[in-house]
Amino acid sequence: MSGQLVVAGLGPGAEELITPEVTAALIEATDIVGYGPYVARVALRAGQRLHGSDNRVEVERASFALDLAARGRKVAVVSSGDPGVFAMASALFEALEDGPAEWHDLDIRILPGITAMLAAAARLGAPLGHDFCAINLSDNLKPWAVIEHRLRMAARGDFAMAFYNPRSRARPEGFGRVLDVLREELGGERPISFARDVSKPGEQLLTLPLAEARAGMADMRTVVIVGNSMTRQVGRFVYTPRQVPGVRGAE
Amino acid sequence: MSGQLVVAGLGPGAEELITPEVTAALIEATDIVGYGPYVARVALRAGQRLHGSDNRVEVERASFALDLAARGRKVAVVSSGDPGVFAMASALFEALEDGPAEWHDLDIRILPGITAMLAAAARLGAPLGHDFCAINLSDNLKPWAVIEHRLRMAARGDFAMAFYNPRSRARPEGFGRVLDVLREELGGERPISFARDVSKPGEQLLTLPLAEARAGMADMRTVVIVGNSMTRQVGRFVYTPRQVPGVRGAE
Repeated sequence: MSGQLVVAGLGPGAEELITPEVTAALIEATDIVGYGPYVARVALRAGQRLHGSDNRVEVERASFALDLAARGRKVAVVSSGDPGVFAMASALFEALEDGPAEWHDLDIRILPGITAMLAAAARLGAPLGHDFCAINLSDNLKPWAVIEHRLRMAARGDFAMAFYNPRSRARPEGFGRVLDVLREELGGERPISFARDVSKPGEQLLTLPLAEARAGMADMRTVVIVGNSMTRQVGRFVYTPRQVPGVRGAE
Repeated sequence: MSGQLVVAGLGPGAEELITPEVTAALIEATDIVGYGPYVARVALRAGQRLHGSDNRVEVERASFALDLAARGRKVAVVSSGDPGVFAMASALFEALEDGPAEWHDLDIRILPGITAMLAAAARLGAPLGHDFCAINLSDNLKPWAVIEHRLRMAARGDFAMAFYNPRSRARPEGFGRVLDVLREELGGERPISFARDVSKPGEQLLTLPLAEARAGMADMRTVVIVGNSMTRQVGRFVYTPRQVPGVRGAE
Protein backbone atom coordinates (compact mmCIF):
# COMPACT_ATOMS: atom_id res chain seq x y z
CA MET A 1 0.00 0.00 0.00
CA SER A 2 1.58 3.28 -1.06
CA GLY A 3 -0.47 5.74 0.96
CA GLN A 4 1.11 7.98 3.54
CA LEU A 5 -0.25 9.67 6.60
CA VAL A 6 1.45 12.19 8.85
CA VAL A 7 -0.03 13.79 11.94
CA ALA A 8 1.62 17.20 11.97
CA GLY A 9 1.93 19.50 14.97
CA LEU A 10 1.37 23.14 14.03
CA GLY A 11 2.62 24.49 17.35
CA PRO A 12 0.80 27.07 19.45
CA GLY A 13 0.05 29.57 16.72
CA ALA A 14 3.00 31.55 15.36
CA GLU A 15 4.38 30.53 11.98
CA GLU A 16 7.96 30.78 13.31
CA LEU A 17 7.21 27.97 15.78
CA ILE A 18 6.34 25.42 13.07
CA THR A 19 9.21 22.99 12.45
CA PRO A 20 10.68 22.68 8.94
CA GLU A 21 9.72 18.98 9.08
CA VAL A 22 6.06 19.90 9.39
CA THR A 23 6.27 22.63 6.75
CA ALA A 24 7.81 20.18 4.29
CA ALA A 25 5.16 17.54 5.03
CA LEU A 26 2.35 20.03 4.46
CA ILE A 27 3.79 21.05 1.09
CA GLU A 28 4.12 17.42 0.06
CA ALA A 29 0.62 16.36 1.14
CA THR A 30 -2.18 15.85 -1.36
CA ASP A 31 -4.83 16.10 1.35
CA ILE A 32 -4.99 18.16 4.54
CA VAL A 33 -7.37 16.92 7.22
CA GLY A 34 -8.20 18.60 10.52
CA TYR A 35 -10.38 20.71 12.73
CA GLY A 36 -11.54 23.76 10.76
CA PRO A 37 -9.44 26.49 12.43
CA TYR A 38 -6.26 24.38 12.23
CA VAL A 39 -6.79 23.57 8.56
CA ALA A 40 -7.29 27.29 7.98
CA ARG A 41 -3.73 27.93 9.25
CA VAL A 42 -2.21 25.93 6.38
CA ALA A 43 -1.13 27.84 3.27
CA LEU A 44 -2.55 25.73 0.46
CA ARG A 45 -0.74 25.03 -2.76
CA ALA A 46 -2.53 24.31 -6.02
CA GLY A 47 -4.15 20.89 -6.20
CA GLN A 48 -4.21 20.20 -2.48
CA ARG A 49 -7.52 19.15 -1.00
CA LEU A 50 -8.70 20.51 2.33
CA HIS A 51 -10.95 18.50 4.60
CA GLY A 52 -12.08 20.55 7.58
CA SER A 53 -14.25 19.10 10.32
CA ASP A 54 -15.76 19.75 13.71
CA ASN A 55 -13.57 19.48 16.81
CA ARG A 56 -15.67 16.82 18.53
CA VAL A 57 -15.20 14.02 16.04
CA GLU A 58 -11.52 13.17 16.36
CA VAL A 59 -11.79 9.42 15.80
CA GLU A 60 -14.07 9.81 12.78
CA ARG A 61 -11.63 12.37 11.36
CA ALA A 62 -8.75 9.97 11.97
CA SER A 63 -10.60 7.10 10.25
CA PHE A 64 -11.40 9.35 7.31
CA ALA A 65 -7.70 10.28 7.04
CA LEU A 66 -6.58 6.64 7.25
CA ASP A 67 -9.08 5.71 4.57
CA LEU A 68 -7.78 8.45 2.29
CA ALA A 69 -4.22 7.23 2.83
CA ALA A 70 -5.35 3.66 2.08
CA ARG A 71 -6.54 4.94 -1.31
CA GLY A 72 -2.99 6.07 -2.03
CA ARG A 73 -3.19 9.72 -1.03
CA LYS A 74 -0.52 11.57 0.92
CA VAL A 75 -2.48 12.79 3.89
CA ALA A 76 -1.49 15.34 6.53
CA VAL A 77 -3.71 15.45 9.60
CA VAL A 78 -3.04 18.79 11.26
CA SER A 79 -3.09 19.22 15.00
CA SER A 80 -2.40 22.24 17.15
CA GLY A 81 0.62 22.14 19.42
CA ASP A 82 2.19 18.68 19.56
CA PRO A 83 -0.04 15.90 18.18
CA GLY A 84 0.98 13.60 21.03
CA VAL A 85 -0.15 15.90 23.87
CA PHE A 86 -3.95 15.95 24.23
CA ALA A 87 -4.30 16.19 20.47
CA MET A 88 -4.79 14.06 17.34
CA ALA A 89 -2.17 11.30 17.65
CA SER A 90 -4.02 9.17 20.21
CA ALA A 91 -7.26 9.49 18.22
CA LEU A 92 -5.38 8.25 15.17
CA PHE A 93 -4.19 5.12 16.94
CA GLU A 94 -7.66 4.50 18.36
CA ALA A 95 -8.97 4.56 14.79
CA LEU A 96 -6.10 2.37 13.58
CA GLU A 97 -6.79 -0.18 16.32
CA ASP A 98 -10.46 -0.43 15.36
CA GLY A 99 -9.91 -0.28 11.61
CA PRO A 100 -9.18 -2.74 8.80
CA ALA A 101 -5.96 -4.73 8.96
CA GLU A 102 -4.53 -3.17 5.80
CA TRP A 103 -4.26 0.21 7.50
CA HIS A 104 -1.31 -1.22 9.44
CA ASP A 105 0.70 -1.33 6.21
CA LEU A 106 0.43 2.43 5.71
CA ASP A 107 3.41 4.72 6.16
CA ILE A 108 2.28 6.54 9.33
CA ARG A 109 4.40 9.16 11.07
CA ILE A 110 3.75 11.57 13.94
CA LEU A 111 5.58 14.88 13.50
CA PRO A 112 6.16 16.63 16.82
CA GLY A 113 5.40 20.28 17.43
CA ILE A 114 5.76 22.90 20.15
CA THR A 115 3.06 22.05 22.64
CA ALA A 116 1.11 24.83 24.36
CA MET A 117 2.51 24.32 27.87
CA LEU A 118 6.12 24.61 26.68
CA ALA A 119 5.38 27.71 24.60
CA ALA A 120 3.65 29.19 27.65
CA ALA A 121 6.47 28.17 29.98
CA ALA A 122 9.02 29.82 27.69
CA ARG A 123 7.09 33.10 27.73
CA LEU A 124 6.74 32.99 31.51
CA GLY A 125 10.37 32.04 32.21
CA ALA A 126 10.94 28.45 33.28
CA PRO A 127 8.08 27.35 35.56
CA LEU A 128 8.41 23.74 34.33
CA GLY A 129 12.17 23.63 34.90
CA HIS A 130 11.89 20.76 37.38
CA ASP A 131 9.74 17.60 37.44
CA PHE A 132 6.21 18.36 36.25
CA CYS A 133 2.86 16.85 35.23
CA ALA A 134 0.64 17.67 32.28
CA ILE A 135 -3.06 17.21 33.02
CA ASN A 136 -6.01 17.63 30.68
CA LEU A 137 -8.84 19.12 32.71
CA SER A 138 -11.48 18.38 30.14
CA ASP A 139 -13.98 16.01 31.69
CA ASN A 140 -15.38 14.93 28.34
CA LEU A 141 -13.24 11.83 28.51
CA LYS A 142 -12.71 11.26 32.21
CA PRO A 143 -14.73 11.71 35.38
CA TRP A 144 -14.05 14.41 37.94
CA ALA A 145 -12.92 11.80 40.50
CA VAL A 146 -9.97 10.88 38.28
CA ILE A 147 -9.04 14.53 37.76
CA GLU A 148 -9.21 15.22 41.49
CA HIS A 149 -7.13 12.16 42.38
CA ARG A 150 -4.44 13.13 39.86
CA LEU A 151 -4.34 16.69 41.15
CA ARG A 152 -3.76 15.40 44.67
CA MET A 153 -1.07 12.91 43.62
CA ALA A 154 0.72 15.59 41.59
CA ALA A 155 0.51 18.04 44.50
CA ARG A 156 1.77 15.48 47.03
CA GLY A 157 4.64 14.58 44.72
CA ASP A 158 5.58 18.30 44.65
CA PHE A 159 5.35 18.34 40.87
CA ALA A 160 4.87 21.57 38.95
CA MET A 161 1.70 21.20 36.86
CA ALA A 162 0.46 22.32 33.47
CA PHE A 163 -3.25 22.19 32.73
CA TYR A 164 -4.81 21.95 29.29
CA ASN A 165 -8.44 22.73 28.50
CA PRO A 166 -9.07 24.26 31.92
CA ARG A 167 -12.53 25.61 31.27
CA SER A 168 -15.27 25.57 28.69
CA ARG A 169 -18.66 27.13 28.36
CA ALA A 170 -20.20 23.66 28.71
CA ARG A 171 -18.63 23.08 32.17
CA PRO A 172 -17.70 26.41 33.72
CA GLU A 173 -17.73 25.09 37.29
CA GLY A 174 -15.00 22.43 36.90
CA PHE A 175 -12.04 24.74 37.01
CA GLY A 176 -13.26 26.39 40.22
CA ARG A 177 -13.20 22.95 41.84
CA VAL A 178 -9.66 22.43 40.53
CA LEU A 179 -8.56 25.68 42.16
CA ASP A 180 -10.19 24.61 45.44
CA VAL A 181 -8.33 21.28 45.44
CA LEU A 182 -5.05 23.00 44.62
CA ARG A 183 -5.47 25.54 47.42
CA GLU A 184 -6.33 22.74 49.83
CA GLU A 185 -3.19 20.81 48.87
CA LEU A 186 -0.74 23.64 48.25
CA GLY A 187 -1.94 26.66 50.23
CA GLY A 188 -2.65 30.11 48.86
CA GLU A 189 0.88 31.41 48.24
CA ARG A 190 1.84 29.04 45.41
CA PRO A 191 2.24 30.94 42.10
CA ILE A 192 -0.23 30.12 39.33
CA SER A 193 0.11 31.44 35.79
CA PHE A 194 -2.51 31.88 33.10
CA ALA A 195 -1.14 32.02 29.56
CA ARG A 196 -3.70 32.76 26.85
CA ASP A 197 -3.16 32.73 23.09
CA VAL A 198 0.58 32.28 23.46
CA SER A 199 2.48 33.40 20.34
CA LYS A 200 -0.74 34.72 18.79
CA PRO A 201 -2.01 38.31 18.55
CA GLY A 202 -3.50 39.30 21.88
CA GLU A 203 -1.27 37.00 23.93
CA GLN A 204 -1.95 37.47 27.66
CA LEU A 205 0.13 36.36 30.64
CA LEU A 206 -0.92 36.61 34.27
CA THR A 207 0.85 35.23 37.36
CA LEU A 208 -0.56 35.56 40.87
CA PRO A 209 -0.82 33.60 44.13
CA LEU A 210 -3.28 30.69 44.15
CA ALA A 211 -5.36 32.52 46.79
CA GLU A 212 -6.16 35.21 44.23
CA ALA A 213 -6.86 32.90 41.27
CA ARG A 214 -10.43 32.83 39.95
CA ALA A 215 -12.02 30.32 37.57
CA GLY A 216 -12.91 33.11 35.16
CA MET A 217 -9.21 33.78 34.49
CA ALA A 218 -9.08 30.69 32.26
CA ASP A 219 -10.87 29.61 29.12
CA MET A 220 -10.21 26.91 26.51
CA ARG A 221 -7.48 29.05 24.92
CA THR A 222 -5.59 29.28 28.21
CA VAL A 223 -2.84 27.03 29.52
CA VAL A 224 -2.54 27.16 33.29
CA ILE A 225 0.75 26.44 35.07
CA VAL A 226 1.17 25.92 38.81
CA GLY A 227 4.64 25.86 40.33
CA ASN A 228 6.17 23.40 42.77
CA SER A 229 7.23 24.36 46.30
CA MET A 230 10.38 26.09 44.99
CA THR A 231 8.82 28.08 42.13
CA ARG A 232 9.30 31.82 42.46
CA GLN A 233 9.36 35.07 40.59
CA VAL A 234 12.57 36.80 39.61
CA GLY A 235 11.79 40.16 38.10
CA ARG A 236 9.13 39.65 35.41
CA PHE A 237 9.84 35.91 35.13
CA VAL A 238 8.52 32.83 36.92
CA TYR A 239 10.89 29.93 37.32
CA THR A 240 11.43 26.67 39.12
CA PRO A 241 15.01 26.03 40.17
CA ARG A 242 16.69 22.75 39.32
CA GLN A 243 17.32 21.74 42.91
CA VAL A 244 15.03 20.49 45.62
CA PRO A 245 15.17 22.19 49.04
CA GLY A 246 18.18 21.43 51.19
CA VAL A 247 20.21 19.75 48.46
CA ARG A 248 23.35 21.32 47.12
CA GLY A 249 24.27 19.67 43.89
CA ALA A 250 27.33 19.22 41.78
CA GLU A 251 27.37 22.78 40.42
CA MET B 1 20.90 48.54 28.40
CA SER B 2 20.84 47.34 24.81
CA GLY B 3 22.06 43.76 25.22
CA GLN B 4 19.95 40.80 24.28
CA LEU B 5 19.94 37.22 25.43
CA VAL B 6 17.96 34.30 24.06
CA VAL B 7 18.01 30.75 25.35
CA ALA B 8 17.37 28.73 22.22
CA GLY B 9 16.12 25.15 22.10
CA LEU B 10 17.87 23.13 19.41
CA GLY B 11 15.45 20.20 19.63
CA PRO B 12 16.53 16.57 19.90
CA GLY B 13 19.08 16.52 17.09
CA ALA B 14 17.72 16.73 13.55
CA GLU B 15 18.01 20.06 11.75
CA GLU B 16 14.42 19.77 10.52
CA LEU B 17 13.18 19.88 14.12
CA ILE B 18 14.68 23.32 14.85
CA THR B 19 12.05 26.06 14.73
CA PRO B 20 12.50 28.99 12.35
CA GLU B 21 12.42 31.27 15.41
CA VAL B 22 15.54 29.60 16.79
CA THR B 23 17.28 29.55 13.41
CA ALA B 24 16.69 33.29 13.00
CA ALA B 25 17.95 34.01 16.52
CA LEU B 26 21.13 32.04 15.91
CA ILE B 27 21.83 33.96 12.71
CA GLU B 28 21.28 37.26 14.47
CA ALA B 29 23.43 36.48 17.52
CA THR B 30 26.91 37.94 17.93
CA ASP B 31 27.83 35.31 20.54
CA ILE B 32 26.83 31.67 20.90
CA VAL B 33 27.22 30.18 24.38
CA GLY B 34 26.63 26.58 25.39
CA TYR B 35 27.83 23.13 26.21
CA GLY B 36 30.46 22.09 23.66
CA PRO B 37 28.49 19.51 21.64
CA TYR B 38 25.46 21.81 21.38
CA VAL B 39 27.54 24.78 20.26
CA ALA B 40 29.08 22.49 17.65
CA ARG B 41 25.62 21.95 16.13
CA VAL B 42 25.31 25.63 15.20
CA ALA B 43 26.38 26.67 11.68
CA LEU B 44 28.53 29.73 12.33
CA ARG B 45 28.47 32.80 10.18
CA ALA B 46 31.43 35.15 9.83
CA GLY B 47 32.10 37.30 12.89
CA GLN B 48 30.15 35.21 15.37
CA ARG B 49 31.96 34.21 18.53
CA LEU B 50 31.59 30.74 19.96
CA HIS B 51 31.89 30.08 23.68
CA GLY B 52 31.80 26.36 24.43
CA SER B 53 31.93 25.01 27.95
CA ASP B 54 31.67 21.93 30.08
CA ASN B 55 28.24 20.48 30.82
CA ARG B 56 28.55 20.68 34.61
CA VAL B 57 28.76 24.45 34.94
CA GLU B 58 25.32 25.62 33.88
CA VAL B 59 24.98 28.54 36.28
CA GLU B 60 28.48 29.84 35.55
CA ARG B 61 27.71 29.56 31.83
CA ALA B 62 24.46 31.46 32.34
CA SER B 63 26.23 34.22 34.31
CA PHE B 64 28.87 34.49 31.61
CA ALA B 65 26.12 34.85 28.98
CA LEU B 66 24.25 37.49 31.01
CA ASP B 67 27.48 39.42 31.48
CA LEU B 68 28.14 39.34 27.73
CA ALA B 69 24.61 40.63 27.08
CA ALA B 70 25.12 43.36 29.69
CA ARG B 71 28.11 44.52 27.59
CA GLY B 72 25.74 45.02 24.67
CA ARG B 73 26.24 41.75 22.80
CA LYS B 74 23.43 39.72 21.24
CA VAL B 75 23.86 36.40 22.97
CA ALA B 76 22.28 33.05 22.15
CA VAL B 77 22.62 30.38 24.81
CA VAL B 78 21.99 27.07 23.09
CA SER B 79 20.26 24.20 24.81
CA SER B 80 19.27 20.79 23.55
CA GLY B 81 15.58 19.99 23.34
CA ASP B 82 13.44 22.64 24.97
CA PRO B 83 15.37 25.01 27.25
CA GLY B 84 12.58 24.89 29.83
CA VAL B 85 12.62 21.11 30.34
CA PHE B 86 15.64 19.98 32.38
CA ALA B 87 17.88 22.31 30.41
CA MET B 88 19.37 25.81 30.44
CA ALA B 89 16.41 28.10 31.19
CA SER B 90 16.22 27.43 34.94
CA ALA B 91 19.98 27.85 35.26
CA LEU B 92 19.66 31.22 33.54
CA PHE B 93 17.08 32.44 36.03
CA GLU B 94 19.16 31.13 38.94
CA ALA B 95 22.04 33.25 37.64
CA LEU B 96 19.75 36.23 37.08
CA GLU B 97 18.40 35.98 40.62
CA ASP B 98 21.90 35.99 42.11
CA GLY B 99 23.34 38.56 39.73
CA PRO B 100 23.58 42.36 39.56
CA ALA B 101 20.35 44.35 39.40
CA GLU B 102 21.07 45.74 35.93
CA TRP B 103 20.76 42.28 34.39
CA HIS B 104 17.00 42.62 34.94
CA ASP B 105 16.90 45.35 32.28
CA LEU B 106 18.21 43.02 29.58
CA ASP B 107 15.99 41.78 26.77
CA ILE B 108 15.77 38.10 27.77
CA ARG B 109 13.71 35.54 25.86
CA ILE B 110 13.36 31.77 26.05
CA LEU B 111 12.78 30.17 22.64
CA PRO B 112 11.03 26.81 22.94
CA GLY B 113 12.18 23.69 21.15
CA ILE B 114 11.09 20.10 20.63
CA THR B 115 11.92 18.38 23.90
CA ALA B 116 13.30 14.85 23.89
CA MET B 117 10.26 13.12 25.41
CA LEU B 118 7.91 14.53 22.76
CA ALA B 119 10.26 13.62 19.91
CA ALA B 120 10.50 10.12 21.39
CA ALA B 121 6.75 9.87 21.92
CA ALA B 122 6.14 10.85 18.29
CA ARG B 123 8.46 8.12 17.05
CA LEU B 124 6.85 5.53 19.31
CA GLY B 125 3.26 6.51 18.52
CA ALA B 126 1.43 8.41 21.26
CA PRO B 127 2.44 6.99 24.66
CA LEU B 128 1.98 10.41 26.31
CA GLY B 129 -1.48 10.93 24.81
CA HIS B 130 -3.12 11.17 28.21
CA ASP B 131 -2.05 12.86 31.49
CA PHE B 132 1.65 12.35 32.11
CA CYS B 133 4.64 13.34 34.25
CA ALA B 134 8.15 14.30 33.23
CA ILE B 135 10.78 13.29 35.78
CA ASN B 136 14.51 13.95 35.72
CA LEU B 137 16.20 10.88 37.19
CA SER B 138 19.55 12.57 37.64
CA ASP B 139 20.35 12.59 41.34
CA ASN B 140 22.95 15.34 41.00
CA LEU B 141 20.38 17.86 42.13
CA LYS B 142 17.96 15.84 44.21
CA PRO B 143 18.17 12.93 46.63
CA TRP B 144 16.92 9.44 45.79
CA ALA B 145 14.12 9.77 48.39
CA VAL B 146 12.54 12.59 46.35
CA ILE B 147 12.83 10.60 43.13
CA GLU B 148 11.26 7.53 44.73
CA HIS B 149 8.39 9.52 46.25
CA ARG B 150 7.62 11.16 42.91
CA LEU B 151 7.69 7.82 41.11
CA ARG B 152 5.16 6.44 43.58
CA MET B 153 2.86 9.47 43.38
CA ALA B 154 2.99 9.41 39.58
CA ALA B 155 2.26 5.67 39.56
CA ARG B 156 -0.63 6.00 42.01
CA GLY B 157 -2.09 8.85 39.97
CA ASP B 158 -2.00 6.52 36.92
CA PHE B 159 0.08 9.02 34.99
CA ALA B 160 2.16 7.97 32.01
CA MET B 161 5.76 8.97 32.73
CA ALA B 162 8.74 10.21 30.78
CA PHE B 163 12.20 9.98 32.31
CA TYR B 164 15.15 12.17 31.43
CA ASN B 165 18.78 11.35 32.29
CA PRO B 166 17.95 7.81 33.38
CA ARG B 167 21.46 6.55 33.84
CA SER B 168 25.03 7.73 33.86
CA ARG B 169 28.40 6.08 34.31
CA ALA B 170 28.74 7.93 37.62
CA ARG B 171 25.58 6.34 39.11
CA PRO B 172 24.76 3.17 37.18
CA GLU B 173 22.69 1.64 39.99
CA GLY B 174 20.02 4.37 40.24
CA PHE B 175 17.99 3.34 37.22
CA GLY B 176 17.78 -0.27 38.44
CA ARG B 177 16.15 1.03 41.62
CA VAL B 178 13.73 3.08 39.51
CA LEU B 179 12.71 -0.06 37.62
CA ASP B 180 12.21 -1.93 40.92
CA VAL B 181 9.91 0.81 42.25
CA LEU B 182 7.95 0.91 39.00
CA ARG B 183 7.47 -2.88 38.97
CA GLU B 184 6.36 -2.76 42.59
CA GLU B 185 3.79 -0.06 41.84
CA LEU B 186 2.68 -1.05 38.34
CA GLY B 187 3.37 -4.76 37.95
CA GLY B 188 5.40 -6.40 35.22
CA GLU B 189 3.05 -6.08 32.24
CA ARG B 190 3.13 -2.30 31.87
CA PRO B 191 4.87 -1.28 28.60
CA ILE B 192 8.14 0.64 28.93
CA SER B 193 9.91 2.21 25.96
CA PHE B 194 13.54 3.16 25.52
CA ALA B 195 14.20 5.78 22.87
CA ARG B 196 17.85 6.55 22.19
CA ASP B 197 19.27 9.27 19.94
CA VAL B 198 15.86 10.16 18.57
CA SER B 199 16.07 11.93 15.20
CA LYS B 200 19.84 11.33 15.06
CA PRO B 201 21.81 8.74 13.13
CA GLY B 202 21.62 5.43 14.98
CA GLU B 203 18.22 6.13 16.51
CA GLN B 204 17.02 3.12 18.54
CA LEU B 205 13.55 2.31 19.83
CA LEU B 206 12.68 -0.57 22.12
CA THR B 207 9.36 -1.33 23.83
CA LEU B 208 8.84 -4.26 26.19
CA PRO B 209 7.00 -5.19 29.40
CA LEU B 210 8.42 -3.73 32.62
CA ALA B 211 9.24 -7.26 33.81
CA GLU B 212 11.79 -7.57 31.01
CA ALA B 213 13.35 -4.11 31.36
CA ARG B 214 16.98 -3.93 32.49
CA ALA B 215 18.93 -0.92 33.72
CA GLY B 216 21.50 -1.41 30.97
CA MET B 217 18.88 -0.61 28.32
CA ALA B 218 19.19 3.11 29.17
CA ASP B 219 22.03 5.60 29.14
CA MET B 220 22.20 9.40 29.26
CA ARG B 221 21.17 9.61 25.59
CA THR B 222 17.99 7.64 26.23
CA VAL B 223 14.53 8.92 27.09
CA VAL B 224 12.43 6.31 28.87
CA ILE B 225 8.63 6.33 28.67
CA VAL B 226 6.29 4.23 30.81
CA GLY B 227 2.62 4.00 29.94
CA ASN B 228 -0.43 4.38 32.14
CA SER B 229 -2.87 1.54 32.83
CA MET B 230 -4.46 1.94 29.38
CA THR B 231 -1.29 2.15 27.28
CA ARG B 232 -1.03 -0.56 24.66
CA GLN B 233 0.56 -1.56 21.42
CA VAL B 234 -1.23 -1.36 18.12
CA GLY B 235 0.95 -2.84 15.41
CA ARG B 236 4.39 -1.23 15.65
CA PHE B 237 3.10 1.70 17.70
CA VAL B 238 2.61 2.34 21.43
CA TYR B 239 -0.22 4.61 22.43
CA THR B 240 -2.30 5.77 25.35
CA PRO B 241 -5.96 6.30 24.55
CA ARG B 242 -7.65 9.53 25.51
CA GLN B 243 -10.20 7.93 27.80
CA VAL B 244 -9.93 6.43 31.25
CA PRO B 245 -11.39 2.95 31.82
CA GLY B 246 -15.14 2.71 32.00
CA VAL B 247 -15.84 6.16 30.67
CA ARG B 248 -17.43 6.70 27.33
CA GLY B 249 -16.95 10.26 26.25
CA ALA B 250 -18.55 12.68 23.88
CA GLU B 251 -17.14 11.13 20.71
